[in-house]
Amino acid sequence: MAKNTLFSKPMIGVDLGGTKIYTVVADETGAVLGSSKKSTQGKKGFDAVMRRCAETVNEALEQAGLSAGKCGGLGMGVPSPVDQNTGAALFSPNLKWHNVPVKKTMEKHLSTPVFVDNDVNLGMLGEFALGAARGTNTIAGFLVGTGIGGGMIVNGNLIHGKNFTGGELGHMVVLAEGPPCGCGTRGCLEAVASRVALSRDINEAIRRGVPTMLKDMIEEGTDRIKSGMLKKAYRAGDRLAVDLLNRCAWYVGIAVANITNAIGPDMIILGGGLYEALGQELLPVTQQSAQQHFFGPAGKDMPIRLAELGDNAVALGAAVFADRKLSAL
Amino acid sequence: MAKNTLFSKPMIGVDLGGTKIYTVVADETGAVLGSSKKSTQGKKGFDAVMRRCAETVNEALEQAGLSAGKCGGLGMGVPSPVDQNTGAALFSPNLKWHNVPVKKTMEKHLSTPVFVDNDVNLGMLGEFALGAARGTNTIAGFLVGTGIGGGMIVNGNLIHGKNFTGGELGHMVVLAEGPPCGCGTRGCLEAVASRVALSRDINEAIRRGVPTMLKDMIEEGTDRIKSGMLKKAYRAGDRLAVDLLNRCAWYVGIAVANITNAIGPDMIILGGGLYEALGQELLPVTQQSAQQHFFGPAGKDMPIRLAELGDNAVALGAAVFADRKLSAL
Repeated sequence: MAKNTLFSKPMIGVDLGGTKIYTVVADETGAVLGSSKKSTQGKKGFDAVMRRCAETVNEALEQAGLSAGKCGGLGMGVPSPVDQNTGAALFSPNLKWHNVPVKKTMEKHLSTPVFVDNDVNLGMLGEFALGAARGTNTIAGFLVGTGIGGGMIVNGNLIHGKNFTGGELGHMVVLAEGPPCGCGTRGCLEAVASRVALSRDINEAIRRGVPTMLKDMIEEGTDRIKSGMLKKAYRAGDRLAVDLLNRCAWYVGIAVANITNAIGPDMIILGGGLYEALGQELLPVTQQSAQQHFFGPAGKDMPIRLAELGDNAVALGAAVFADRKLSAL
Repeated sequence: MAKNTLFSKPMIGVDLGGTKIYTVVADETGAVLGSSKKSTQGKKGFDAVMRRCAETVNEALEQAGLSAGKCGGLGMGVPSPVDQNTGAALFSPNLKWHNVPVKKTMEKHLSTPVFVDNDVNLGMLGEFALGAARGTNTIAGFLVGTGIGGGMIVNGNLIHGKNFTGGELGHMVVLAEGPPCGCGTRGCLEAVASRVALSRDINEAIRRGVPTMLKDMIEEGTDRIKSGMLKKAYRAGDRLAVDLLNRCAWYVGIAVANITNAIGPDMIILGGGLYEALGQELLPVTQQSAQQHFFGPAGKDMPIRLAELGDNAVALGAAVFADRKLSAL
């Protein structure tokens, strides 16, 4: 293949998230030729979501001026561990899925081979092939948003593990007996460093009467606080916002050190809503915390970098995943 | 090779620990033909320790009735991360080593090729090739003694990582801002679940006047409590011993879940002084804690097993390591 050529044919990548579906058609170099976005509407159930995904694929193909037959195949990231033998999504608390046949259903809707994996795994694969981690062999990554997802690539290959939960770094316990986590246990990274954790602690502080400009920004009764609000309050020097966001970044640094001590990657990637909004501010806090928690020489020359692909990471990673699967057939 | 044949020639394995050196000569099936043990006497310095290692090798060879020339080579485990390019031990707080040329020095003393790695890595490789983890591909292991060592094998290969600290699972932070650890940070597994952590907490409880039979067992002023004492007190139902040892086992279960969520191994191995002394009692506590902390399906059919090779694990793993290195040449 010529220089800069990534795929032998154009590829389709789908990022199916809890709130939106985002699909791209990429050419042989990984450049986006067409894209489409829709709300997920997960409440309508699995079949309806699959149909909406198929619609985004057709729209992205149309925008790219290509038919499905001209593409090599389709990769798809979903917010769930995925059985790599069957392409079924094993469980998504968010979408209320339990062992649903994503690959099989999508292949019925579309006349192209479909390959499915966890969305954060594919986001990391995107960064590995096209983004911040190009040229590395082994990486670990954290996407810090509403929840915290993780992904790991060891010697060039995504780690899926025995039960397909490999890379679930957001559920690493860093504070034993700490706050409850959505996953049912306590003290996970997600329970102390995600936007859900932040919202919990900000609302509690407001109830206790801690002064903060966030009080007027958030609606009465909501427990969701948007990244945009946090960014504004942090940059305005709001004490509560600065303290709590820095604490999140500090906890992420502990998890960065833990996985570095364990596998010694070539690079750590940080992304997701919080680092997209406040990367320049939070990255140094995470780096300092990691340095504090590295074991001996584990952190020597260990780059900790912000993700580069933003909203395209999962969809492009999905395209890379499908291409790799097709090449291995 | 015939069934049950592990090596093409007899191999030498050296387990160099902080307090003792233990060397075996193993035949082609991994059976021990000769062995030798000496105190390490680390205070005499690196060169003296290397000479003592060479003496154990000659004694073990004599007992086996073999010359070094009849053996394929020598593997050696040391309590330090080891630079896999040079065979130098990077740092051992215990032996006060900093970047010392183990491979080079041992090869001067003995006319056989020498291959060096971290002792816990090699203990895990021993269990993988000859012990509890035979037939698996990916494992993580914890040796819980005075400190806590860890090792990981992914798809059949030891994980060394960029700075050769791969597998340092004892320095995974599980209790952010927890008790100080010997490594300089806080809240590592080693700081809450090792014999050093236990000794600290037992001595503190005794000072506070908590009744325990351990009070009469430990010498005034000592901060070391032997596994034998702990075993006796635990089996006698001493409340303090039972509570604190169960708490150690519970913390180990958190670390087991963390690494399982991250890499999804085929098996987890637990060994070291505490599990050797009280494996039947502590294993169920660790298993229950891990079940509590696994993410979703991560722990499905996940065997958590006691190590089987005991004192031979590191020395036999070292022999396996040398054989693998020689086969790869």
